[in-house]
Amino acid sequence: MPPISENRGLTANHSFELHDLQSETDDRAITIDKVGIRGLEIPISVHDRDGDCQKTIARVGMFVDLPHNVRGTHMSRFVAILNEHDAGYSPEGVSRLLAAMQTRLGAHSAHLEVTFPFFVRKAAPTTRITSLMNYQVRILANRIHETLDLILEVQVPVKTLCPCSKSISKYGAHSQRSVVTIQTRSQSTVWVRDLIEIVEASCSSELYAFLKRPDEKHVTESAYENPVFVEDLARNVVLRLQQNNRITWYQVEAENQESIHNHNAYALIRHCPPENRS
Amino acid sequence: MPPISENRGLTANHSFELHDLQSETDDRAITIDKVGIRGLEIPISVHDRDGDCQKTIARVGMFVDLPHNVRGTHMSRFVAILNEHDAGYSPEGVSRLLAAMQTRLGAHSAHLEVTFPFFVRKAAPTTRITSLMNYQVRILANRIHETLDLILEVQVPVKTLCPCSKSISKYGAHSQRSVVTIQTRSQSTVWVRDLIEIVEASCSSELYAFLKRPDEKHVTESAYENPVFVEDLARNVVLRLQQNNRITWYQVEAENQESIHNHNAYALIRHCPPENRS
Amino acid sequence: MPPISENRGLTANHSFELHDLQSETDDRAITIDKVGIRGLEIPISVHDRDGDCQKTIARVGMFVDLPHNVRGTHMSRFVAILNEHDAGYSPEGVSRLLAAMQTRLGAHSAHLEVTFPFFVRKAAPTTRITSLMNYQVRILANRIHETLDLILEVQVPVKTLCPCSKSISKYGAHSQRSVVTIQTRSQSTVWVRDLIEIVEASCSSELYAFLKRPDEKHVTESAYENPVFVEDLARNVVLRLQQNNRITWYQVEAENQESIHNHNAYALIRHCPPENRS
Amino acid sequence: MPPISENRGLTANHSFELHDLQSETDDRAITIDKVGIRGLEIPISVHDRDGDCQKTIARVGMFVDLPHNVRGTHMSRFVAILNEHDAGYSPEGVSRLLAAMQTRLGAHSAHLEVTFPFFVRKAAPTTRITSLMNYQVRILANRIHETLDLILEVQVPVKTLCPCSKSISKYGAHSQRSVVTIQTRSQSTVWVRDLIEIVEASCSSELYAFLKRPDEKHVTESAYENPVFVEDLARNVVLRLQQNNRITWYQVEAENQESIHNHNAYALIRHCPPENRS
Repeated sequence: MPPISENRGLTANHSFELHDLQSETDDRAITIDKVGIRGLEIPISVHDRDGDCQKTIARVGMFVDLPHNVRGTHMSRFVAILNEHDAGYSPEGVSRLLAAMQTRLGAHSAHLEVTFPFFVRKAAPTTRITSLMNYQVRILANRIHETLDLILEVQVPVKTLCPCSKSISKYGAHSQRSVVTIQTRSQSTVWVRDLIEIVEASCSSELYAFLKRPDEKHVTESAYENPVFVEDLARNVVLRLQQNNRITWYQVEAENQESIHNHNAYALIRHCPPENRS
Repeated sequence: MPPISENRGLTANHSFELHDLQSETDDRAITIDKVGIRGLEIPISVHDRDGDCQKTIARVGMFVDLPHNVRGTHMSRFVAILNEHDAGYSPEGVSRLLAAMQTRLGAHSAHLEVTFPFFVRKAAPTTRITSLMNYQVRILANRIHETLDLILEVQVPVKTLCPCSKSISKYGAHSQRSVVTIQTRSQSTVWVRDLIEIVEASCSSELYAFLKRPDEKHVTESAYENPVFVEDLARNVVLRLQQNNRITWYQVEAENQESIHNHNAYALIRHCPPENRS
Repeated sequence: MPPISENRGLTANHSFELHDLQSETDDRAITIDKVGIRGLEIPISVHDRDGDCQKTIARVGMFVDLPHNVRGTHMSRFVAILNEHDAGYSPEGVSRLLAAMQTRLGAHSAHLEVTFPFFVRKAAPTTRITSLMNYQVRILANRIHETLDLILEVQVPVKTLCPCSKSISKYGAHSQRSVVTIQTRSQSTVWVRDLIEIVEASCSSELYAFLKRPDEKHVTESAYENPVFVEDLARNVVLRLQQNNRITWYQVEAENQESIHNHNAYALIRHCPPENRS
Repeated sequence: MPPISENRGLTANHSFELHDLQSETDDRAITIDKVGIRGLEIPISVHDRDGDCQKTIARVGMFVDLPHNVRGTHMSRFVAILNEHDAGYSPEGVSRLLAAMQTRLGAHSAHLEVTFPFFVRKAAPTTRITSLMNYQVRILANRIHETLDLILEVQVPVKTLCPCSKSISKYGAHSQRSVVTIQTRSQSTVWVRDLIEIVEASCSSELYAFLKRPDEKHVTESAYENPVFVEDLARNVVLRLQQNNRITWYQVEAENQESIHNHNAYALIRHCPPENRS
């Protein structure tokens, strides 16, 4: 059995050359799947469907694999690569960033996680007054040898109104804020806004930052006319994803912050490729 | 000006006596208002109004003041005092704990913050089937010389239904989960359940962990019949607090997780003693 | 294409029979992988290796699959099943709970997630004074037809001291709090404490709630004598997991809250069964 | 006693004029101290000491008082005012925003809370390679009649090394990430960077996003030469704040994420004006 403890003794402490311990040979025979940095906050630019470019703030994770016979990765190189990269978060930019990680860190695989708020200017449904609505976006990208696997995730907050509550009650129906989290893989670019529109068409009502009374009347009535269970919400989103022929894989989670309970209702549907179906 | 840097030099490193640096004289002439520990997790027992005792898990903060001429407090004593204390979290128990902190740490003032989940078994409104509902409680206690100041805080999640939405819409009304946070000082014991009951009587509907269809019908209709704005919710709670003559001070916050927006509506009312009113 | 919108119209609103909408036929042809409740907080009991039983507070998620032709699950049954279950969180108890979910909800698969704080009384390394140390535990259990798949997860906070910093510096070395998250599957019972001991033997030093000066000296020197990179920490844990022949699968994550950066260092190793290795 | 319940009855539901319920008279005789919105996310611009302007993302809270005889505020006006305001977050801009809230909502007092990440480009201590370091900033502003009260808050993560651990140990000393939260009031502009520099001069070592080995050696040795307790850290910051004659009030909190414990050490010093000292 290989030695477990990594005591390097005290003599090392009196050595003033800046020895590269990370490059030492490792005899524990254990490959590390992912090693790198997490929780680094930086400003980034994101391209939008309409050709604009948003400036936002991201939290970043960057990882590579490490062969069984090398002791450590070089953590500062992740930050250096990120600092040199400023092409915006397009699929091409992400692929170049991952390729740079593979090259500079001598790795087979490279992984990137980027999470950021994203804004869409929307018109209120009746008064048409506009305001900015915020969404959370994540890019989950892996590059193994020369193959890129990119997942786009968007969290869309919506309103749901309960069909059962409406059906059994003399008047009213409980409603609440819900969050739909979509992940997709695609064969050509799917935009953040494409996914937002799919979710906002599938719920009881979309949300707005700004609503005047005529708008609030519209949202209230429209939600009452479109009750959805958490299961309906997830299925409605999946039906629309299935109609988009650029999307090759999806996962949909819906979570209702139930206004009659102090816990949430949750549904998950994951795309199952035909070859995996029993 | 006093020295800012506290470099103790390298010689200290080769001293093998366990010198008590914390007890050193400090010449910066700055009294520390609170010093201690935060985020310690421990199991505790809490007495309930019905005479029962709940076992729960608390996060604890413990602090004392430190005179301007002493360098540091003794952090391990806070944990020692807490370990020796097992009398349950009654006002008397809290006072004894604070007095022990003052004595053992030679302090004028001692401060305690204890946050924990608290459970109440409730019957569903129609079927009367019972389930446990969770609330978050905080005890904020200060003892200065021999005077105890104790604040009880309870967070109560409820349902609110919007009066404006109901009034302007053909049918329906948006509703959502809301959280009311009450803080009170009192001249004799006010129980956690007393505060929960005050909040649950002041909202559109209380919440339950378990509801069957007849219960859901009741909650839906009852909420539609009792619409409250976030302002109404805060004021209704204050009216009831004013009727309880054991309560000498209160602060009420209400926050609606609006189901038509991705931001919240918020109201705060703080008791203003008669002598402070303009 | 099936209808996306689920408008039930206004007539339903005036029906006073409590119609079971959830049991309706669904024609969207989309199976739901998981549907249920999330974020329910309850008191539970957990058996420990020494035969004791701890009372703690858990957050619970419970889910089942839903066939493509059924509109909704019955959310209240999850809470009912949980309320009836009080056998403690042993593997047998978890299996019974999942089987009850399958039966009562007519499901092929049932899933449970239970997260709770767990306490171990430890002696300080030199003075041997004892105190309670807290850990976070998760049980992730799935039952598909009659097959149980149970993952035990434990989060263990530890101290790491950087070998590179020690090696290149005249004196000192940066250290920090780190968190190791282990997940395991096993063929017979592996206890929470077993996993805690594996992690605490693999870091620069374990943590304690209570330390007096002689203990702090021991922890400081022992950490300096046992420097580990985040990669070493993950590999040391894996070596010990490999020696435990009850464990059939594992995943190890280590995350150092670097004291020289405002971001973290991270490593992940996932067990790869021999048949999946290239 | 005034009526507690606000049942508006069902007739209101069939009224199709968009009645302004918020403007109704209220007879509960309870003034609301703060009412408004919370958790609204928007992009903002922030001026920096060097004349630059950073684009960042803020979470915003906006509140006004509400007289005892008015039922509700107008929530949409807060968002409207914010949308029209784009002057950047200077003290003058904040004052104009608060004045607009007072005017448009007919309020005596207006309150603003804005929280955002802020970035500073720093050179590593030895190699001088630059990278962006992130901090969290909050603006807490109140305008009562025509008087502005503005508090600037900055959270600065730093490294602390324990003087006791260094003093009693043969070698090494435990170190950890710590966070200092400063709040200040001032009679002329104090910049975010001014406060960051004060904290980074008061700790064992400042943090960096990017460090190569010579830089890591410098940080390690420099921290070992500058040990500080959490009390020293808070007092060092206060000494420097006292030397800045623009600052008229301060509060300093320091919290060490102790690498030998799973809980934190904490100190708080609040400026006490001479007239309030006993």
